[in-house]
Amino acid sequence: MSEFAELKNDRFLKALLREEVDQTPVWMMRQAGRYLPEYRKTRQQAGDFMSLCQSPELACEVTMQPLRRYPFDAAILFSDILTIPDAMGQGLFFAEGEGPKFRKTIRSAADVDQLPDVNIASELSYVTDAVSVIRKELNGSVPLIGFSGSPWTLATYMIEGGGSKDFRIAKQFMYDNPEAMHLLLEKLASAVIDYLNAQIKAGAQAVQIFDTWGGILTPAAYREFSLNYMNKIVDGLIKENDGRQVPAILFTKNGGQWLEDIADSGCQAIGLDWTTDIGQARARIGDRVALQGNMDPTMLYASPQAIRKEVGSILQSFGQGAGHVFNLGHGITPEVNPDNVAVFVESVHELSAQYHA
Amino acid sequence: MSEFAELKNDRFLKALLREEVDQTPVWMMRQAGRYLPEYRKTRQQAGDFMSLCQSPELACEVTMQPLRRYPFDAAILFSDILTIPDAMGQGLFFAEGEGPKFRKTIRSAADVDQLPDVNIASELSYVTDAVSVIRKELNGSVPLIGFSGSPWTLATYMIEGGGSKDFRIAKQFMYDNPEAMHLLLEKLASAVIDYLNAQIKAGAQAVQIFDTWGGILTPAAYREFSLNYMNKIVDGLIKENDGRQVPAILFTKNGGQWLEDIADSGCQAIGLDWTTDIGQARARIGDRVALQGNMDPTMLYASPQAIRKEVGSILQSFGQGAGHVFNLGHGITPEVNPDNVAVFVESVHELSAQYHA
Repeated sequence: MSEFAELKNDRFLKALLREEVDQTPVWMMRQAGRYLPEYRKTRQQAGDFMSLCQSPELACEVTMQPLRRYPFDAAILFSDILTIPDAMGQGLFFAEGEGPKFRKTIRSAADVDQLPDVNIASELSYVTDAVSVIRKELNGSVPLIGFSGSPWTLATYMIEGGGSKDFRIAKQFMYDNPEAMHLLLEKLASAVIDYLNAQIKAGAQAVQIFDTWGGILTPAAYREFSLNYMNKIVDGLIKENDGRQVPAILFTKNGGQWLEDIADSGCQAIGLDWTTDIGQARARIGDRVALQGNMDPTMLYASPQAIRKEVGSILQSFGQGAGHVFNLGHGITPEVNPDNVAVFVESVHELSAQYHA
Repeated sequence: MSEFAELKNDRFLKALLREEVDQTPVWMMRQAGRYLPEYRKTRQQAGDFMSLCQSPELACEVTMQPLRRYPFDAAILFSDILTIPDAMGQGLFFAEGEGPKFRKTIRSAADVDQLPDVNIASELSYVTDAVSVIRKELNGSVPLIGFSGSPWTLATYMIEGGGSKDFRIAKQFMYDNPEAMHLLLEKLASAVIDYLNAQIKAGAQAVQIFDTWGGILTPAAYREFSLNYMNKIVDGLIKENDGRQVPAILFTKNGGQWLEDIADSGCQAIGLDWTTDIGQARARIGDRVALQGNMDPTMLYASPQAIRKEVGSILQSFGQGAGHVFNLGHGITPEVNPDNVAVFVESVHELSAQYHA
C-alpha cells in the first residue's frame, strides 16, 4: 500500500509505456520558472537560487505554481541538475545573471581520485525531502518526475568550472586522459543511480536524465563517454514502485542523430529537441520507446495562432496512437508571456484527441 | 585562356567532384586566423577587423600565411560572412572581444522593403579585388575558395543586430511575419548569387555557403527558410569558369539530420560538423555529393597522438575511394597551438594514401 493518494491523471505514465490514452499528455521542461511572476516572487523571498532548491517547502511551492495555472499532466521536482557535484564538495554557486559555476575544478587524475563518494541520504536529503513534500501536496492529481544531470553533463561543468562555449577543457581532458575521465564518469554514474533511486523511494513516479551537453560530442565519443553511463544508470534504476513501473526518459540535446543508440539503452522514452522531425524519429525507432517533445521553445514568443498551428503539426507528424508525451524541445525561457503557455497546453489537449480515437 | 597560372595541385577540386586523387585533400575553416602569430601581427597593423577585410593586400597576406606553414590543398578568401548586409547599409562593426554587431536592425516588413539592392561591383569591390590579388599570388599552387553566409544566417544577424543565444527575435519574426521573412531571404539570396558569381569571375575556383545558424531551426523551417534559399543560390551560380567546373559546398552547422535534403540542392559537396559519423553520412547519401569534414576543432587541443588517431578514424569511417575533402567540423579556435595544425595536416596526407590505392 502506498502512503500517497491514488493517481487520478495517469496519461503521462501511460504514454511513457506506450499505453493508450485519451489525449496526449503535456508538460514543459522548466515549467516552474522565471516566466511566472509568482515564481519570481518566491525566488526573491528565498534569496538565492540554491536556497530555493534547498528548502523543501519553497521547492514544493514553485513546483506547484504552474499546475495551478495550467492543466499539465505531470509535475517535475524543482531542483538543479548540479546538486551531485555540489554534494561532492565542488562548491556550486550562481553569480547574478550568469550560469552555474563551481569553486573547485577537476583538472587531473588526482582530482578525480580525491573526489569523495556522496552519501545521498545525508548530503542530498533536501532533494528527497522536497520530493516527498511535493508528492503529498500533489495529492494524486498528476505524477511527479524526478531528475538528474547525466554523468557527462555533470563532468563538463566540474572540469570547466561552469558553462562553456566549446567545452575545450572538458574535451581535452577526455581526449588526453580517457582513463581518468572514465573514472570520473563511473563515480558520477554510481552517484546518479543512488540519487534517482532515492528520489523514486521518496515518491518520484518517473525520472528524466538531462544530457544537456552530450550533443557536443562526436558520435563515437557520445557513445563511449555519455550514453554508456546513461545505460548504466538505466540498468541500476528501481524498475517498479508501489506496483507501478517507473519509466526513465533520456534527453540528449542535439542527440537527434543517435536515437537508435539511445533507444538501445533500456529507457522507456527519448526526449527530442526541436531539430528532429518527431514522425521521422518514430519511423526510425518504431515502437521500441516512447517519444517526448518537441516544440521549439522560442515558438512560445510567436502568436497564439502560430503556436496552435505548430502544436498541430507536431501531433500530426507523430500520428495516430500511443507513445507520445508532448513537451518543448528544451526549457521554457524567462521572457515568455504566460498566456502563451495556456495556448500551448490547451492546444495539445484539444488537438490530440483525434489521434487517440 | 585564363589570365591565371595553371593549377598544380587540384586534389581539392577533384575530390569535390568525386574524382580519384592520390591523397585526401585538406583545408581548415578559419585557417587564416588568430591561432597564427603572424595573423595577429597583420591584424594589429590593419587596425580593426573590417579594415583587414577591406584591404585586398592585407587580406591576401593573411590568406597566404597558413599556406606558408602547412601543405593545405586549398586557400580560402579572407573576409567576413556579413559583408552583404554591411553593403546594404546595416552598419557592421566588431566590438572588442564580442561577436559581430549591426547598428541597424530589421524588425518589420517596412524595414525589409526599405532594404536597398546591393551593387556588388561597386559596394563589394574590395572583396572581388582581394579574390583576384590572392588568386595571382597563389600562382596556381592550390585552388582558391570564395564564400558567403547563407541568406538565413545573414538574416538572423540583421534581425537580432548581432549573435544570439536562442535567436528568438529572428524566429519570432519568421513565425509571425513569414511573408516579410521570405522577402528578406529573397533579397539576400539574390545578392548572394551576384556576390558569389562576382567572386568566381574574379578568380574563385570553388565556393562555400556558410549556413552557421540553419541548425537552430525545426526541420520544416530549415527547408522553408534556409535550404530553400541555398537551393536558389546553387541554381544561380556560374557552373564553369575557364573550362573547369566550379563546385559549390553547403555547410549547415548542426545539419546532420538533413543531409538527404541538402544533397538534393544540386550542390557538389556537403560540409559536415563533427556530430555526424562521416561513414554513415556516406551510406545515407551514397555517391550523390562529396563530403567535407569533419574533425572536432577542439581535438586540436589534444596531444599529437590523439589528433593523428582521430584523423585515422575519420578517414577509415569514410573508407575507400573518392569524394572526401578533409576539414574540421567548424572553424579552428584562437588558442590552438600551431604545431598541432601541422600534425593534423600531415596526418591527413600520410594516412589517406591507403584509401586511394
